[in-house]
Amino acid sequence: MKSMSETVLEKTEGRVSYHDSVEEMLVRIREDGMSNVFDRYQAQEKIRCKFCLQGLTCQQCSQGPCRINEKGEQDRGVCGIGPDAMAMRKLLLQNIMGAGTYSHHAYEAFRTLKATGEGKTPFKIKEPEKLQWMCEKLGITTDQDLNKMAIQLAELLEHQQQIGVEEKNLMVEAFAPKKRKQVWRDLNIYPAGTVHEEQNCVASCLTNVDGNYASLALKALRLGLATIYNSQIGLEMVQDILFGTPQPHEVDVDLGIMCPEHVNIVFNGHQPWIGAAMIERARSSDVQEKARAAGAKGLRVVGSIETGQELLQRFEMDDVFVGLMGNWMAIEPLLATGTVDVLAMEENCSPPAIDMYAEKYQATLVSISTIIDIPGLQHKFPYDPSETDKIVEALIDLAIDNFKKRKGKVTPQVPQYKAKAIAGFSTEAVLGALGNKLDPLVEVIAAGKIKGVVALANCSTLRNGPQDWNTVNLTKQLIKKDILVVAGGCGNHALEVAGLCNLDSIKEAGSGLQEICSALKIPPVLSFGTCTDTGRISMLVTALADHLDVDIPQLPIAVTAPEWMEQKATIDGVFAVAYGAYTHLSPTPFITGAPQLVKLLTEDVEGLTGGKVAVGDDPVEVANAIEAHIVAKRKGLGLH
Amino acid sequence: MKSMSETVLEKTEGRVSYHDSVEEMLVRIREDGMSNVFDRYQAQEKIRCKFCLQGLTCQQCSQGPCRINEKGEQDRGVCGIGPDAMAMRKLLLQNIMGAGTYSHHAYEAFRTLKATGEGKTPFKIKEPEKLQWMCEKLGITTDQDLNKMAIQLAELLEHQQQIGVEEKNLMVEAFAPKKRKQVWRDLNIYPAGTVHEEQNCVASCLTNVDGNYASLALKALRLGLATIYNSQIGLEMVQDILFGTPQPHEVDVDLGIMCPEHVNIVFNGHQPWIGAAMIERARSSDVQEKARAAGAKGLRVVGSIETGQELLQRFEMDDVFVGLMGNWMAIEPLLATGTVDVLAMEENCSPPAIDMYAEKYQATLVSISTIIDIPGLQHKFPYDPSETDKIVEALIDLAIDNFKKRKGKVTPQVPQYKAKAIAGFSTEAVLGALGNKLDPLVEVIAAGKIKGVVALANCSTLRNGPQDWNTVNLTKQLIKKDILVVAGGCGNHALEVAGLCNLDSIKEAGSGLQEICSALKIPPVLSFGTCTDTGRISMLVTALADHLDVDIPQLPIAVTAPEWMEQKATIDGVFAVAYGAYTHLSPTPFITGAPQLVKLLTEDVEGLTGGKVAVGDDPVEVANAIEAHIVAKRKGLGLH
Repeated sequence: MKSMSETVLEKTEGRVSYHDSVEEMLVRIREDGMSNVFDRYQAQEKIRCKFCLQGLTCQQCSQGPCRINEKGEQDRGVCGIGPDAMAMRKLLLQNIMGAGTYSHHAYEAFRTLKATGEGKTPFKIKEPEKLQWMCEKLGITTDQDLNKMAIQLAELLEHQQQIGVEEKNLMVEAFAPKKRKQVWRDLNIYPAGTVHEEQNCVASCLTNVDGNYASLALKALRLGLATIYNSQIGLEMVQDILFGTPQPHEVDVDLGIMCPEHVNIVFNGHQPWIGAAMIERARSSDVQEKARAAGAKGLRVVGSIETGQELLQRFEMDDVFVGLMGNWMAIEPLLATGTVDVLAMEENCSPPAIDMYAEKYQATLVSISTIIDIPGLQHKFPYDPSETDKIVEALIDLAIDNFKKRKGKVTPQVPQYKAKAIAGFSTEAVLGALGNKLDPLVEVIAAGKIKGVVALANCSTLRNGPQDWNTVNLTKQLIKKDILVVAGGCGNHALEVAGLCNLDSIKEAGSGLQEICSALKIPPVLSFGTCTDTGRISMLVTALADHLDVDIPQLPIAVTAPEWMEQKATIDGVFAVAYGAYTHLSPTPFITGAPQLVKLLTEDVEGLTGGKVAVGDDPVEVANAIEAHIVAKRKGLGLH
Repeated sequence: MKSMSETVLEKTEGRVSYHDSVEEMLVRIREDGMSNVFDRYQAQEKIRCKFCLQGLTCQQCSQGPCRINEKGEQDRGVCGIGPDAMAMRKLLLQNIMGAGTYSHHAYEAFRTLKATGEGKTPFKIKEPEKLQWMCEKLGITTDQDLNKMAIQLAELLEHQQQIGVEEKNLMVEAFAPKKRKQVWRDLNIYPAGTVHEEQNCVASCLTNVDGNYASLALKALRLGLATIYNSQIGLEMVQDILFGTPQPHEVDVDLGIMCPEHVNIVFNGHQPWIGAAMIERARSSDVQEKARAAGAKGLRVVGSIETGQELLQRFEMDDVFVGLMGNWMAIEPLLATGTVDVLAMEENCSPPAIDMYAEKYQATLVSISTIIDIPGLQHKFPYDPSETDKIVEALIDLAIDNFKKRKGKVTPQVPQYKAKAIAGFSTEAVLGALGNKLDPLVEVIAAGKIKGVVALANCSTLRNGPQDWNTVNLTKQLIKKDILVVAGGCGNHALEVAGLCNLDSIKEAGSGLQEICSALKIPPVLSFGTCTDTGRISMLVTALADHLDVDIPQLPIAVTAPEWMEQKATIDGVFAVAYGAYTHLSPTPFITGAPQLVKLLTEDVEGLTGGKVAVGDDPVEVANAIEAHIVAKRKGLGLH
């Protein structure tokens, strides 16, 4: 019998994406002779390095580059490092990049909150209750002016990113599951601040410092915990304070949201600051008037990848803010529509070869960050919270200028695909739907109507099939088995665009899940935001564990990253293992040449944290394995 | 005509090291069938990846691994990154590891000073004048108790590592050359704290963040400046405060310092804390008595690589502290002598395969750091300043235990090579020798007796010949040309062991340099300490520039790293370019497949910072090029 993937892959023969919109644009891209991610992937497939694929290469020092085998005279690098440590060190370096980028995002969030408290930004404390709640949790007096409270909270959170081992980790104490803390202490993975852990890890990766794979792996787990508690949760709560806690509402997604007749400013990356300010600003009649004076129907704000999702979670759609275009692999197709006036970029993914798209299809690329750059970039406004208004106005002017150039020069082509999705789930929103208590959720899980919960957080990759193919198909398998999926990241956008985050998709769920979704009027896939919301998702799971007075590994839950691509996904995955979750990763990480490391991550670590890594690229098989895990955990809790 | 290197390489046919001691031990190592760095290097030479050698590979994301060519369908990575950004990003990641390790060392220094001020360590404020001097430079009141001053200074320095762009960089303001600061501001490379810059760089290296090689290169320059000013100089000054500013004195070096009849505790890495405490402790009669009771002649402390140099700079030799064994490639040979009882490791280079040496030759390996580990390591004492005494006692016990096991089990073999060196030069020591003014130095340079000064700071590698071959031969060429060499790092140990840091070597210098060295009774190569003393070396050059009221690129100086190996060397090199120095690097960094990047670093950057990278592996040719550069700079200053 053919496996699901074989069957579906036959149907997808020749396809590069699950999404018809992307397929349609790729025809234009290829006709125009443009280099693109899909064809570059195929070109690389011909010359992959088999050593690199197994994690058995190192290019760190001048005595290398080395590539090693399990046996023979090349069984170690020149320095003497073996396969397990070589592969794990490379993975840890990826983890560090992920942690570093999340903590950079957090740094931007905290200084934005501080500047807002100081009255230096156009932002407001939109949710004073959440500010008070955070202050209470962290020991800041709430008997004071809101702005002062905001400044104090911002300073405390930034300091919490930096703390060493001597200081109390207030964020872990406030947000980690009750029964986990001692487990982490016993394993020596109870973390200090993210930045401190990064420092320790970076220094550990130097040539001839840490050559022990097990030690390196423990450092990764510790870094993962710091990242989620001291960076992600803090930054997401701050974004809620500034822009509001996400609440479910209907939105439009896919490339069909683009209108060539409007001036279109697209926000791309992960950080909401300038995009949020732009939505407010663009709702003013003078901005719309300015756009109309240039011959456009008006000026629109478009969300792209995670920045788009951050905006989507919190802002209602209207004539100005029109939705989310898709995930990172849709960026080149988006630009090829010839409808983008400004692509404002502040974090990944801002792919390095889109300069040629900007030129061909007349878009203006702008960096609004201290870290983003691409070749030949002309317009750079390094983010500074107090410069927000100036940056917003500059983007409007650049976009209108671009619109004038674009009209007549480029023939627009917009694929007519648009889907509805319900975005904006959060722990608060879920609790709200349940009458502010967890018992109803516990009851439906106990009754088996919801068999368990899977958190899906990841990217989008071509390594295991067309774009989003694995993410969508695995999710379909899971909901069919009455497993509720809570999604974040580019994988979440995939599910939104594929129509799995709207009420029509209830019919694709198993009967138990169907019943619950219909009663609550929620889809079987809850859009929980971005990959940065991994922390937010954990808050819901933590609430459940604490409510039941059990530890995380006892719960009928699992984590999956069915299409991880970059380094933030790797640190989210590592966190999940430390958190105590069964963690499915596809594609298989490049560590297969490291037998002891593979055994540690897929078997032995379960005896330590209760979590472990599971691999597999076939949606049916993976869903079965996840179901088996959930069923076993249900049994452990005495459920049937 | 054959080049110098061809001629000498013929003579070194079959050799792996400049040092006879290492050669002798390698015979034993090979007879014993032990894996070793020299043979592993040869094994890797057979299977090097040509893409990796050129910087044209990337293993960051799941769409890779990629390897690219300049032309054809594989001219970009899957994400779209081109050769220049791919190579520069990899180099920046190396820089980050170097900066991260230096800033980790600085963190340990600052918390040690703080704990000392709080009375929690066995250390004392050995040099109150330097403490006061630092406090004055940084705006801390000196009208207070020394210990309070120490605590305040420690806190300020740690904070200076962390500062963002909003705060004043007090370390750069206090220690950078007067005329450089505006140059750095204009280029946007005037740095914030090391940790802040690391964060920005790490996030920039994420997939799809910074794809512009020029932007990545500027970030590296900025990181280099932060590393030297906010980490290195601070930590070295703190070490001076705790252990005394280095002053020249005669020491013994090479493997011949080992005595099998003693209990030998070897300190390896870069950080002096436990080693310094051990020297003081081991000078007590009860410790010596304890060792004698175990059948030994006594207990000795031995310096290994940079930790050894840190101790050598500041501690006089006696029956207890017996000198420096050599640089990092001598570690396996050292262990093979069968005379090491404890190898206490706290930073690089602690090579990952020495576990097999410890077993074969009965040595006990101990990590005394939060970052070091190697496979199977049994003894770990993560450094904590307040645990210093306990760690010292534990090491003594482990060493004596090991001595008992070692006797009878292992036949010791100590190569009978020992050299004298004058270690302990510093800016203060040089000024002291000159009567506390720079004019005498200026005069001898103006008169051409000293043609110029070259700072040599680096590691030791096999890539460009036998261990230390290039370092020693280049230095010989330079001093013959009346160029004074100021040395730091494993390269400095190479020169010490090779006999170039003692007064006998004056005869190898040119006549002008001979005259000056003879008059001042200094060798033509001044041992300035470790690679961490790159900052210290810059202080001397900065003093010279400020004294003459000129900018760094105007001076008749150059920097060379003739055998860089690891990532700290890369950040030192990057600093030198930002500092405005002609910077020779050998081996050629793995960026040769990136034509625009090569042009930037070897040509165009000179128009920006005044510094640039020069490459070349032939000591004669390199010395000629350095001389030509120095002569040109002399002309620019009106000297002949």
